[in-house]
Amino acid sequence: MSGAASNRETVTAAVLIIGNEILSGRTQDVNLNYLATRLTALGIKLSEARVVPDIPDEIIAAVNALRARYDHVFTTGGIGPTHDDITSECVARAFSLPLIRHPEAVRRLEARYEPGQLNEARLRMANTPEGAELIDNPVSAAPGYRIGNVYVLAGVPSIMRAMFDGIAGRLRHGAPIQSCTVGAFLGEGIIAKGLGEIQAAHPELDVGSYPFFRQGKYGASFVIRGADRGRIDAAADSLRRLIRALGAEPIEGELPE
Amino acid sequence: MSGAASNRETVTAAVLIIGNEILSGRTQDVNLNYLATRLTALGIKLSEARVVPDIPDEIIAAVNALRARYDHVFTTGGIGPTHDDITSECVARAFSLPLIRHPEAVRRLEARYEPGQLNEARLRMANTPEGAELIDNPVSAAPGYRIGNVYVLAGVPSIMRAMFDGIAGRLRHGAPIQSCTVGAFLGEGIIAKGLGEIQAAHPELDVGSYPFFRQGKYGASFVIRGADRGRIDAAADSLRRLIRALGAEPIEGELPE
Repeated sequence: MSGAASNRETVTAAVLIIGNEILSGRTQDVNLNYLATRLTALGIKLSEARVVPDIPDEIIAAVNALRARYDHVFTTGGIGPTHDDITSECVARAFSLPLIRHPEAVRRLEARYEPGQLNEARLRMANTPEGAELIDNPVSAAPGYRIGNVYVLAGVPSIMRAMFDGIAGRLRHGAPIQSCTVGAFLGEGIIAKGLGEIQAAHPELDVGSYPFFRQGKYGASFVIRGADRGRIDAAADSLRRLIRALGAEPIEGELPE
Repeated sequence: MSGAASNRETVTAAVLIIGNEILSGRTQDVNLNYLATRLTALGIKLSEARVVPDIPDEIIAAVNALRARYDHVFTTGGIGPTHDDITSECVARAFSLPLIRHPEAVRRLEARYEPGQLNEARLRMANTPEGAELIDNPVSAAPGYRIGNVYVLAGVPSIMRAMFDGIAGRLRHGAPIQSCTVGAFLGEGIIAKGLGEIQAAHPELDVGSYPFFRQGKYGASFVIRGADRGRIDAAADSLRRLIRALGAEPIEGELPE
């Protein structure tokens, strides 16, 4: 977490969601969307996400694949006190580091629980790879941690968010990605050719088209993303002209649901 | 889609979500949860999910990694008419197959659009790898397809669901996974030891613990999953006894939100 901001480079990230409950359908993941939104706003390009089950070899392989490739890796899930919470053992094995009982994490748990309540299961939440730097948990004390470029966060959304918010300001990042959204009640197939030409004229930007069906009509939202506000504005002006040339009115921003 | 059901083997699947909008945070994915729920109920074990951006090499690498490893791969997104819809080109390249304009897909688009409205952008939605078998789209005509063990589905949730529902009955699958959920207002750390012993006594089952905070109190839902109802029931009975021994009352089923 020592890195400073840079406006020149692209800083990348991956999210690794650990948990059978996502893959069984029991739980609708909401952590990816939170992290995606926050990272994008910070100027960190979220480049990949994976969901893996509570199987050690799967977790270890994914941690190692992602940490080798991206600047930051954020894991969610698997750091509670029960037998299916195996993230810390797996991260330690991925880094070939011993799993230790982190003294400061133990102190935080001791401060949280009544005397006699801090049993062995709860103490497992103080296990980290050797050398980990703790990440505060203002909700329920049991900390996350950073080891290398891997940030190990809770799976419970309120705790994950609090943990991320506590470290966000210290993450190395690039120029914040800016965006402009313009929509129209036009079929994607009608505007596709002109939209592709706008993308081709602005290779430094990312022009996306997302269809919707609202008020009984088909339309699409077009999102222009990039680091340079002037170029985004120029592309958005071209887009508004295109929409009008096709006989529709540009709609500024996202349509409400 | 020729495979028959088998109750003996484990049939696995992966989901590949293709789209910058998920990784930028613009869109909260809901397709994974739908597919996870349906696959689990069908007796197909969803073993991994990935989200990749609209970058050809990323899509190709993910398709090839997943199709080599799992029985079925379901992709969502990137099969519309705009420049950022590149899934079919990428799947064709992943299989080293030519990308063709599928004659039956063209016929379906011709039937959908008024004369003169089926432009080149829309015709791109009829492109498939050579040898693909179409998947019906009852919502907006433009089909998905299967090639090898890869099922290429739309990203728009209503269309994705309709496509999946049309093929679900023909997917090769194992014994449907059954589950039993019992909860309690007990801290996970209190029940962790006994819960781990129940998991250890039933290695053929998957015992998960999912904490919650409701009515001002901490608790957890415990989900027991497996193919054999008798063994699930036996483990659930042990769990109910454990909860009572710890001074709480078992809560049957998922708590309402």
